[in-house]
Amino acid sequence: MGEIIKGKPVADKIAEELAVEIEVLKGKGISPKLAIVRVGARPDDLAYEKGALTRCKKVGVEAEVHEFSQEITQAEFIAGVKKLNEDKNVHGILVFRPLPSHLDEKELKHVIAAEKDIDCLSPVNEGKLMEGDKTGLAPCTPTAVMEILKHYNVELQGKNVTVIGASMVVGKPAAILLLNENATVTICHIFTKDTAAMACQADVVVVGCGVPRLVKESWIAEGAVVVDVGINVDADGNMCGDVDFDKVVDKVAMITPVPGGVGAVTTSILAKNVVKACKLQNNL
Amino acid sequence: MGEIIKGKPVADKIAEELAVEIEVLKGKGISPKLAIVRVGARPDDLAYEKGALTRCKKVGVEAEVHEFSQEITQAEFIAGVKKLNEDKNVHGILVFRPLPSHLDEKELKHVIAAEKDIDCLSPVNEGKLMEGDKTGLAPCTPTAVMEILKHYNVELQGKNVTVIGASMVVGKPAAILLLNENATVTICHIFTKDTAAMACQADVVVVGCGVPRLVKESWIAEGAVVVDVGINVDADGNMCGDVDFDKVVDKVAMITPVPGGVGAVTTSILAKNVVKACKLQNNL
Repeated sequence: MGEIIKGKPVADKIAEELAVEIEVLKGKGISPKLAIVRVGARPDDLAYEKGALTRCKKVGVEAEVHEFSQEITQAEFIAGVKKLNEDKNVHGILVFRPLPSHLDEKELKHVIAAEKDIDCLSPVNEGKLMEGDKTGLAPCTPTAVMEILKHYNVELQGKNVTVIGASMVVGKPAAILLLNENATVTICHIFTKDTAAMACQADVVVVGCGVPRLVKESWIAEGAVVVDVGINVDADGNMCGDVDFDKVVDKVAMITPVPGGVGAVTTSILAKNVVKACKLQNNL
Repeated sequence: MGEIIKGKPVADKIAEELAVEIEVLKGKGISPKLAIVRVGARPDDLAYEKGALTRCKKVGVEAEVHEFSQEITQAEFIAGVKKLNEDKNVHGILVFRPLPSHLDEKELKHVIAAEKDIDCLSPVNEGKLMEGDKTGLAPCTPTAVMEILKHYNVELQGKNVTVIGASMVVGKPAAILLLNENATVTICHIFTKDTAAMACQADVVVVGCGVPRLVKESWIAEGAVVVDVGINVDADGNMCGDVDFDKVVDKVAMITPVPGGVGAVTTSILAKNVVKACKLQNNL
């Protein structure tokens, strides 16, 4: 059976390092602060928010929630974000997505201050991501994938990596981050002819497509490393990933579980990005 | 023997369409204008400049060259670019790269006005590229690759495409553009274990790595389409691409020649981007 590589040790390690950094910042009179913008009260936003607040509190990042009404207009919404852009005490802004359909995410992307944009909504941060410019803020979930691979000493340079899913939230940025580490990256998606074949040739498979247990044992090469970004609830009400874990686990060298894998690291990256943003804004 | 797909018909078609658009703009009293920024006088910059000026003149885009001394300081250089940012008569700015080593390209990337940045230096345009946001300005060479594939009716959706080379100028943006057309994209580079194997499984191979005749007949699947972005001079002083054309041509369905392939389209894309930038700046 492959090694089940959990998120918790990775998150704990990051939290430990952050706590030290935050102490130093506080010694200089700077207190990193996150502003969460939530429109309405979707259960999954609330669940993530709870985790984020707990994590921030634990490491010493201040956090406040700005709940906007489900009926907010685009103009009011944008004004609310601009106010946070200008608030010198706020270093990071996280806006829960998807937004209600009457709000335009595209305007938000160009309004949010790049230096406070801790989940990489702004094209400025997306561009820096593409360039491998470390002064940018990379999106939390794909960065969590990278931190897990690093923590468990998974070599990437020259390795074949197949990414399944090409969303702007997971697949595309993950592919770029992996490419920036000199992996040979293949990106598969709904139009791919033979995703199984592409996955089979990979040393590392990163899956984030939102299809419960899509990735079967036959898709994975013996001894591969599998990172499962999916969080789904199956027909029986059980939480599961995008990988058929129970069968795949016997074949791999390492695999992340769901829950307790990538999801357990994401809020630590969020806190880490707030601290990074805070340091950038203070020229530290 | 495969079909040799030349750049000229593609360039001519684009030029024809542009001429019509420019007539309309001139009717409104708007004359699209390109500013070329050249530091020093490197022979390859001069060669490209000559082609760009000819193409612009042909389609009716005004063009002016700003030659800066090889000894210009970073501050003077940045000031020069800022002046062009502010010049309402200039719609597109092209800065020849690489810059002399004492100049910092990174500062330039953040200084050049995104709406005039016709070769996608700015992270704003890179980010829009990544998102598939068509209001951005995509880099000329990879866009030329896409225009050639489109002109010759090469289907991309669901096809396996291997990109050889992962530079910010060719490989990375080409991979993103291909992915945005729903191709399954694999990106190979110097650290790739077996580029031949990755190329062999591709329906379309795009090569831009700067190694003369690197891609051999054995790397290419029977009936594939090959686009060669390379422009090299071999030991005998002959111009050649990154593909071993004479041997590969017999195996493929289509292949671009060097010279006369991608290179012949790039300046048309440049002119097209100036017109696009001009329209964006005039809210047209």
